[in-house]
Parts: sequence; C-alpha cells; structure tokens
Amino acid sequence: MYDVAIIGGGVTGLSASIYSARFNLKTIIFDPDFGGLIKTTHLVENYPGFTNVTGMELAKSIEDHARSYKNIEFKKEKVIDIEKNGDCFLIKTEDGEYQAKTIVFSTGAEHRKLNVPGEKEFTNKGVSYCATCDGPLFKDKFVGVVGGSDSAAKEALLLSQYAKKVYIIYRKEKIRAEPINLKRVEENDKIEIINNTNVTEILGRDFVEKVRLDSNLRELKLDGLFIEVGFVVKAELAEKLGVELNEKGEIIINGMSETNVKGIYAAGDCTNFEFKQAITGVAQGVNAVYSIYNYLKDYKIEPC
Amino acid sequence: MYDVAIIGGGVTGLSASIYSARFNLKTIIFDPDFGGLIKTTHLVENYPGFTNVTGMELAKSIEDHARSYKNIEFKKEKVIDIEKNGDCFLIKTEDGEYQAKTIVFSTGAEHRKLNVPGEKEFTNKGVSYCATCDGPLFKDKFVGVVGGSDSAAKEALLLSQYAKKVYIIYRKEKIRAEPINLKRVEENDKIEIINNTNVTEILGRDFVEKVRLDSNLRELKLDGLFIEVGFVVKAELAEKLGVELNEKGEIIINGMSETNVKGIYAAGDCTNFEFKQAITGVAQGVNAVYSIYNYLKDYKIEPC
Repeated sequence: MYDVAIIGGGVTGLSASIYSARFNLKTIIFDPDFGGLIKTTHLVENYPGFTNVTGMELAKSIEDHARSYKNIEFKKEKVIDIEKNGDCFLIKTEDGEYQAKTIVFSTGAEHRKLNVPGEKEFTNKGVSYCATCDGPLFKDKFVGVVGGSDSAAKEALLLSQYAKKVYIIYRKEKIRAEPINLKRVEENDKIEIINNTNVTEILGRDFVEKVRLDSNLRELKLDGLFIEVGFVVKAELAEKLGVELNEKGEIIINGMSETNVKGIYAAGDCTNFEFKQAITGVAQGVNAVYSIYNYLKDYKIEPC
Repeated sequence: MYDVAIIGGGVTGLSASIYSARFNLKTIIFDPDFGGLIKTTHLVENYPGFTNVTGMELAKSIEDHARSYKNIEFKKEKVIDIEKNGDCFLIKTEDGEYQAKTIVFSTGAEHRKLNVPGEKEFTNKGVSYCATCDGPLFKDKFVGVVGGSDSAAKEALLLSQYAKKVYIIYRKEKIRAEPINLKRVEENDKIEIINNTNVTEILGRDFVEKVRLDSNLRELKLDGLFIEVGFVVKAELAEKLGVELNEKGEIIINGMSETNVKGIYAAGDCTNFEFKQAITGVAQGVNAVYSIYNYLKDYKIEPC
C-alpha cells in the first residue's frame, strides 16, 4: 500500500515525488516516458534559476533530483485504469496492480491534432508536432507552422535556425505570442506570418510537398508542416473517478491542488489553471503533496 | 511611469521580475539587499531542479537569471512609503520617488524575536538568528537552538557540523520538523532535544555564558543561542493601502496572487498561503505578473 501514487512523470509529477519523499510518504510514480512534454521544448528561459536551458536538460535536472531520493518507486508503466475501493485506490497498469491511499493526477496534455486530410498519412513524413525533435531534418527547406500561440512562435523561431523559410499559418488576425517572442518573430527575416488562413489539406507523394489553404493563396509549397494548435488534456481516468472537469475538460483544482474528490489531487497542465508554465505546474505538484501530508495526518484511512 | 513595481527582491520578487521582463512590462524592483531570506538557509534540497545547493547559490542563480534581462531596473533602495494616486501608485524610498501602475508585494518576512532579557544585549555576542551565517564561529562549543519547526531542526543539523553539542530547546511536546529532517535529528548523536521548556533569560559577561530555563533543568551552560521561532511578515505598507490581512498579519491573496485592492498583488512569505516554500513563492510571483499582464491589457489606466 502506497501513501501516494503519482500518475504522470513530467516535471510536475516528478516535483510532487520529491516533496512526497521528503515527507517520508511511500511514493510511486508512473510514466512510460519520464520527463514529460517539456522535453519537446527547445529553449526554456522561464524556469527561475535556469537562465537558459533546453527542455530536455530541465526535465533531466528535475528527474535526477527526484531519483536522488531512494524512497520513490519509478514505474515505466502506463496506467490504464483506477478504481476507488473505500478510502483507497486500485491502480491498474499494463504490467500490474498497485494500491494507494491518495492519487496525484499530473497527466499533462498532448498535442492537439489539426484533423485535416493527409495529417495522419504524412505524420513523420513531413508532418511533425515537435520542432525540437524534427527541426534539424529541414535544413534549407521550406516549412510551415500552424498556430498562433506563444509555442507556435517559439517553434517558428527554432525552425528558422535550420529552414530557408518559415511560414506561420494562423486562422485569426494576429498571433498571440509572449511579447518578447513576438518581437523576435517580427525581426526575423526568414519568418513570414500568413494570417486569417487555415490549412485544409496536406498533399504529397511519399513526403509532404504542399498544403491547401482556404485563403486567396490557395496553395503553399512546403517540405514540412509543424502543427502547434494547442493541447488536449488527459483527464479520462480522473473523470471516471468522479472528479469535476471544466468545459475544456481540465481537472478543477483549488489553490492547494485539491479536487472535489477526497484523496484525489491534480497539478500542472491537466488542471484548470489558465497560466500553464513549468514553474507553476511544479508548485502545484508541491502543494498537492502538502495537502496529502495533512490529509493523511488528520484522516484515518480504512484498510481497503 | 513603470508598469510594475516589485517591493522586495528575494527569490519571489526576482522571479516576478523575470516574467515581467518577458511580458515586456516596464519593471522596477526594490531591495536594499537582493536575494532575500533564503540566503540565510544553509542547505536547500527542495527547489525542484537543484538537488542540493546553498540558499546563497539558489538566490544567486535566480538573481543572475533576472539580471540577464535588460528591461528590469534594480534599485538597492528601501521603500518607506507608497501612496495611491487614482489608478497609480507613488513609491517613496530613502533616495527618490517612482510612479507605477501596479505593485507586487514580495516583502517576505523577518526572524521573530524571542523577547527575553539579554536577547538584544547579546545579539552578535552569542545570540544569532542565522546558523548559516554564524555557525562556523561555534566550533567545538555548546550551542542551543530555540524552536521546534523544520527550520529549527535544520539549524540544529547544520550546527552539529561545528559544535560539540547542540540542544534544541522547544516549548512544546514534540518538534514538528519535516519527517526527513526529524529522522536526521534523532540519528544525530550531538543533538539533544529539550522539550516543554522555554528560555526565560540569556546571561553572560561579554558573551553568552548560559541561559535560564523554566523547566527542572533551570539553567544550561551555552556559548551560543540560535533563535528560530518563526517569522514576522512585513505587510505594513500593504495594510496602509487598504490590503486585507489575515489574523497573522499576512496579505490575503487568491490562487492568482491578487489582493482585494485593484492593481496590488502579493506573493511569497508575506502572504496567507500556509505552505511557504521557495518554489511556491516563486510560482506566486509568476502568477502575480500574469494577473498584471491581463489587468493592464484589459483596463485603461488613468494618468496619475
């Protein structure tokens, strides 16, 4: 019987495990691939204390920190179901079953699909969701970035280091990047913004060759298309346990990372907090564990 | 006219300034001594990403990070008064006056005094509030730590590296350190806990020689006494501006670091959040700036 089961081992879940270990709570953390989505971010400049690191490096620093505690069990397993048994939880993975007194959902989010013809067919054949991972493959090529968020701007900036030309294709009037990144985009000669335009189809033979657009441009020749249109929260397991979600499907938590269900906590990208940063997710993970520490101190858990 | 004035340059205020700079907000941050209270902590093991650093090193990493942005003004000045002028604020320091649209209070807290005879007289003559700073002066000596918090336990552990003997003197039954630190204290042969006991007087000639106790022990010969009985929040300036405080004198904020007064935000040790950690204060500072970014975007500030 574990005191705390953490579902998701990105920086949020890993930080929760650090505090859980320090509180001497018997801790297990699940993820098929520790480190989380931040590993796909090339440049992280906004985790206070690290002026300038890659997402990979930041994830490694936090994972190494967590692994320095010997009372955390790391399971490279995908959680497929969780059942409530009295005051306890039964966690099922593809490889086994585990019992825990409390759950922290730090399941994060995954890249949203564009859902246009050709997207699935050309994934990894010119269509990508991660410039950090695949950018270097497009040296001196023509690429597009679909999206208008800060992440889209950052992807375009990164791609401009490799590609000959980068188009940001955005459905609305004006991209909404952080001002510092917007300025960088505007000053970058390789980047061109195509506003008020959707990609409606991705075309090619073996690899992407062009995309169809719904504006006057009609078509654009491209060697690669990076899709950066937001995230879909992973909260099905929480919902099944009766945890309240908001209209975006995000887990609703309070300032101390408590959900509406006793013994269930959540933190990071899978929650309703709008400002989703590594640093804020990490602090939510830490707060979740403090809430658990108090919960386990004050409540008598019935054996399951 | 600054967009954001940050009052207090500990890790919380410095992190707020990083985000403020990234949002392209005109930012000024005040502190007579940047880095904050964490500089007096010897060992920080719970800021995710830094497995094991001194408080001094962590403060420096975050200050260096902030100083990498050229659109932050750092003022080594003590803020002595703030007045509200319409929708703006007039900030007075010993050296000048400044105007800002918004205020972030990250004023932190200072060490609480014991308020017993001899305390003031022997400060820096055996009485100290910082084991990190003064511990090495007590090599092979007998020292006491007053308090029962996690900080008191950590101070005692640090002092045991220098002193011959360390007494933790605590007024209640059982010290309430983090379990990991409690275990370390219990396993440390040099540390002895004296429970249910108060120090009532500090005695000596030129330096501390002994303390008077209110238990059967009556007296204890000591060369040094480290006082670690909590913190007093610095919130007078906020209170004067109509910001609501709780019964402990802490600034009441919500999950996005907003106070009850428009344009005033707070973060870190000076707030009502019970779990006061470097990482949680930093995230609150970051959230304060996100709230400000939205406030300045949506509201039309009248010129003052």
